[in-house]
Amino acid sequence: MAAPNHLLSGLRIVELSAFVAAPLAGATLASLGADVIRIDPPGGGIDIDRWPLHEGKSLYWAGLNQGKRSVTIDTRTDKGREQVTRLITAPGENAGIVLTNLAVGDWNSYSRLSQLRPDLVMLVVSGDRDGGTAVDYTVNAAVGFPWITGPASHDGPVNHVLPAWDAMTGFLAAMAILAADRHRRATGEGQLIELSLTDVGLSVAGSLGLLGEAVLNAEPRGRFGNHVYGTFGRDFATRDGRHVMVLALTPRQWGGLGEATALTGRMRELEEQGGFDFRREGDRWLGRQHICELLEGWIGERDLVEIRNSFESHGVLWGPYQTFKELVSNDPRASLANPMFAEVEHPGLGRYLTAGSPLRFSALAPVPPLPSPTLGQHTDEVLRELDLVREA
Amino acid sequence: MAAPNHLLSGLRIVELSAFVAAPLAGATLASLGADVIRIDPPGGGIDIDRWPLHEGKSLYWAGLNQGKRSVTIDTRTDKGREQVTRLITAPGENAGIVLTNLAVGDWNSYSRLSQLRPDLVMLVVSGDRDGGTAVDYTVNAAVGFPWITGPASHDGPVNHVLPAWDAMTGFLAAMAILAADRHRRATGEGQLIELSLTDVGLSVAGSLGLLGEAVLNAEPRGRFGNHVYGTFGRDFATRDGRHVMVLALTPRQWGGLGEATALTGRMRELEEQGGFDFRREGDRWLGRQHICELLEGWIGERDLVEIRNSFESHGVLWGPYQTFKELVSNDPRASLANPMFAEVEHPGLGRYLTAGSPLRFSALAPVPPLPSPTLGQHTDEVLRELDLVREA
Repeated sequence: MAAPNHLLSGLRIVELSAFVAAPLAGATLASLGADVIRIDPPGGGIDIDRWPLHEGKSLYWAGLNQGKRSVTIDTRTDKGREQVTRLITAPGENAGIVLTNLAVGDWNSYSRLSQLRPDLVMLVVSGDRDGGTAVDYTVNAAVGFPWITGPASHDGPVNHVLPAWDAMTGFLAAMAILAADRHRRATGEGQLIELSLTDVGLSVAGSLGLLGEAVLNAEPRGRFGNHVYGTFGRDFATRDGRHVMVLALTPRQWGGLGEATALTGRMRELEEQGGFDFRREGDRWLGRQHICELLEGWIGERDLVEIRNSFESHGVLWGPYQTFKELVSNDPRASLANPMFAEVEHPGLGRYLTAGSPLRFSALAPVPPLPSPTLGQHTDEVLRELDLVREA
Repeated sequence: MAAPNHLLSGLRIVELSAFVAAPLAGATLASLGADVIRIDPPGGGIDIDRWPLHEGKSLYWAGLNQGKRSVTIDTRTDKGREQVTRLITAPGENAGIVLTNLAVGDWNSYSRLSQLRPDLVMLVVSGDRDGGTAVDYTVNAAVGFPWITGPASHDGPVNHVLPAWDAMTGFLAAMAILAADRHRRATGEGQLIELSLTDVGLSVAGSLGLLGEAVLNAEPRGRFGNHVYGTFGRDFATRDGRHVMVLALTPRQWGGLGEATALTGRMRELEEQGGFDFRREGDRWLGRQHICELLEGWIGERDLVEIRNSFESHGVLWGPYQTFKELVSNDPRASLANPMFAEVEHPGLGRYLTAGSPLRFSALAPVPPLPSPTLGQHTDEVLRELDLVREA
């Protein structure tokens, strides 16, 4: 759905995908105006009915395919493979880009496709670099986070529910496509880009210092529940049954927290007793249990509204926990008051609050939040365009 | 450290940053060869001593600043502001890009800087879109995941330890810079790009169908521990005290799991008794407790090595849980056997296993994993270059 006059208007990406990583990469580019054509088998791919559902229809599929064109082609047939091949290798400086996280066969390998269009850009997302199968949940298990996530008293691994590795991989894939497009514009050269979920997990764990820590330090990283490691931050329960996340990452935030709760003097006593200097985040970490005891009292004796007033007038870094229902019911950031959102009619699902790109580019109007296509909605349209291209 | 002949060689980004999102965006571009110059105050920014530490030195800072040049300038002084302004607005088609997640003042606002270089590209990461303070942990609290993460029996919120929203924001920011660079190359036009952590959290929750579900469905999303919602996946304990994540996202994986465990017949009985068809993932979800009981028995009676052999020979989608220590000690994917890694000497920390970019581009050699700079290591070098630019 190549919206005119958007940042990536005209850029065409053919997507052979399922689940999260490649679909999110495609949706990210589509949300900036690119013409992203997702190819599925007739009847839909493996994720066509993926939960969550609404009245039997997938909200997941709808969310991950916003703004794309949907084409159904049976790639088990020679004719289907020929059509997809022509679509991928069609001419044009804005075309010739393919994105996939499905198994690649001989017919759609980079070596074959790049014979037909030498400057092809092809991005392949895999599980493991060596071709081994891996998905977000097995990557997460492998890279160590489930043993440091969750209540400190819990004795098993705790999985993310958020498929964080998939989402990061999707955004990195979108970036990589633009990097390769940049290189192609400068040199005329296309290329194969490979990206595995496992390598994304490992590189991010490295960036956060967790691999270095595991190699260099004798002491393994512990599980600290909702404490933010190495500084001050934790959840607290309010008198009226809500929960708030409270942090102090900077000396100023620490000062504000003391003032907001009138606990500055008591915190000073703790510092003197324990030999701490809570302006240092390492000391806030080491003294966290004492700090938390004081805050548990202050927060537990107050309702959320009073806490909010005091925290906000003193520059405390904090926020209330919300369920997804509370988020969409009460938080203006998840409403039409936030221009990122619109009420969008999604075929088969109806009208609901839908986010567009979180990116705002000053030079161009944002692409409005777009509906998901119906499966195969653009098959005829895209094949017609392809014939026109062939005849031109 | 503009490595020659890499994908983004020559592209220069000035980074004013702390913590994760902007530093990771910069490191991501640096890992593809860009010359990323991080500016900090003398003595370092707020994150210079951020945990985890090794012998008092920050592994976090080292991880998030690999491959950059580090410059210290006091931006509280007029002279410092003048120097940073000149660095940001220096001429060249590959320059004029600034990335920040710090508070922007009058002196470094887009409106002022773009007067000096009209085609400036400036990306500003904020907490909330409206300027409100938010960090990964408060965004996570707001968007709903802590109430659906963690053991089903737990009655409070469970935070991610992985700062997933920060990391996603970093990768999206890197993508946005390349999108704006593309637009500038095509049109000559620069722009301000704004991106908030909260909007990233909301848009990803939307992409995954969670906002639509909260709006449309009466039933709130429950907390299901390590069960993967809507399909089959969960952790299991082995006889030898290990844990494995086991999934079946496709009919083929489901079939493989039955064969690997010789439980196909018992699973069929469950289907008949419960009216399920476990080839459908919705049915695997609805019947998950029964499925898990059978698998708990099979897996709990076996050691990891036996489970691995059987699962791998039947194409089961699974993976062992590993601590960070186990990961770097035992997993070849987190070792020099994976070409993404190298042993890198980081100043002040020594030599340790370090990841480069997870992206592999066939047209160009990968940038090898790079060390982090010492704070201010490149101050003189960069200021000299700036004088040369001014005199040229």
